[in-house]
Amino acid sequence: MKVKLTLEYDGTDFAGWQVQPKQRTVQGTLEDALYRLTGHTVSVEGAGRTDAGAHALGQVASLSLTTSIPALKLAVALNSILPEDVKVLWSEQVPDSFHARFSATGKVYRYVLLLRYGPSPILRHRAWQIGTKVDVEGMAEALPLFVGTHDFKAFCASDSSVTTTVRTINDVKLKREGDTLAVEFNGNGFLYRMVRNMVGALVAVGKCRATAADISQALTSGRRPLAFTTAPAHGLYLVAVEYNPFAAIDKLDL
Amino acid sequence: MKVKLTLEYDGTDFAGWQVQPKQRTVQGTLEDALYRLTGHTVSVEGAGRTDAGAHALGQVASLSLTTSIPALKLAVALNSILPEDVKVLWSEQVPDSFHARFSATGKVYRYVLLLRYGPSPILRHRAWQIGTKVDVEGMAEALPLFVGTHDFKAFCASDSSVTTTVRTINDVKLKREGDTLAVEFNGNGFLYRMVRNMVGALVAVGKCRATAADISQALTSGRRPLAFTTAPAHGLYLVAVEYNPFAAIDKLDL
Repeated sequence: MKVKLTLEYDGTDFAGWQVQPKQRTVQGTLEDALYRLTGHTVSVEGAGRTDAGAHALGQVASLSLTTSIPALKLAVALNSILPEDVKVLWSEQVPDSFHARFSATGKVYRYVLLLRYGPSPILRHRAWQIGTKVDVEGMAEALPLFVGTHDFKAFCASDSSVTTTVRTINDVKLKREGDTLAVEFNGNGFLYRMVRNMVGALVAVGKCRATAADISQALTSGRRPLAFTTAPAHGLYLVAVEYNPFAAIDKLDL
Repeated sequence: MKVKLTLEYDGTDFAGWQVQPKQRTVQGTLEDALYRLTGHTVSVEGAGRTDAGAHALGQVASLSLTTSIPALKLAVALNSILPEDVKVLWSEQVPDSFHARFSATGKVYRYVLLLRYGPSPILRHRAWQIGTKVDVEGMAEALPLFVGTHDFKAFCASDSSVTTTVRTINDVKLKREGDTLAVEFNGNGFLYRMVRNMVGALVAVGKCRATAADISQALTSGRRPLAFTTAPAHGLYLVAVEYNPFAAIDKLDL
């Protein structure tokens, strides 16, 4: 039986999603919980490999189970074992062909900036504090430059090994609320560190260290200007992963 | 020199504001930092003695300093010593008669509820998760009952030793945003656990375990129905403390 899990986690105390030796990772924590629950070694595939410190409001994972536990009850069973910084929001049976990463048709990422002078204890692990001298209008004007199909080579980490760096951003949003500024990207796929690099470029524009034209040029040239830093992971949230509706799901005997 | 500090803290890892033997408290942490900075024992008075786990966005503290450090630079100096879960947002010189608690003319408290089925890793230390079956309209109708001058005896912890339990609530607000519901109280003073008890009563109404009439009756009778629980501390935020404008502040040589 193939199962889809929707997960929320606070990434602060995790060394990211992906299993690494002697590190506390989200994937490893989930696989440990599944082993305790089922007595079997279960591999979990995540839709997005979030970095150390990055959070998820709707990460999706897929796994195969041979046990008799109903898929819909798996969430409650796993939550009784999982630590309080990662929980299953929803569990459901899906067609055997489903794969959290390969079946995904889109993802939504949010990045939260804190526009304040001085540190914030409450948001210290939740937002990137960038001061108050920020040209929010300039950022709002530059943000739509990312929309569309582009070669995002300039915005992907150099150690990335992918066949193509072309991706499509369908929509972007900017929402100011008090002293926080949330930037949201909805796209068909994201390269390694792409969101953090796009946000780094936007903040460079907001701090007048770069212009919107530099973003346009980076998108056409594939070269990243030195002024574009990489935003830290702790402001990043994987909000949702999108899939095509399951044509086969009506046939499942839930 | 009398100094006023405005503080933000994440109450999760503190045993509340007030100094207690062998416990990590906000007051104790501040006094330690002041000792390290000045070499003197400095007593700090807080405007509100927040409970273990409760947060502050704008707690106010007062203290007397004999050192030559300019009051306005104290925030930066203290922040270099303080741990990351408590920081000074602002420091300023005030008249010698100023006292964080006794000079306060009002306070604003916020309580955040999470209306969701299942736990939230991101908000686990920031909001009280009360499920989805909540009559928000019923709560919104009951909330204004607290406005005005009342004897809040039914909403204060039994171990409280105050001369009068009469307080005035000037204003209340209810703000829904996604699956969070923030309740805000602006009043001239609050009894021990009063906000947590008012929120407990509101949630009892929201969960149809009590009615708005029960709140009215508790305000007149001074007796608290069993259905009114005390909301947990981790959803509570001391947002701001209000003072009369300092008439003398113009004369200070800042």
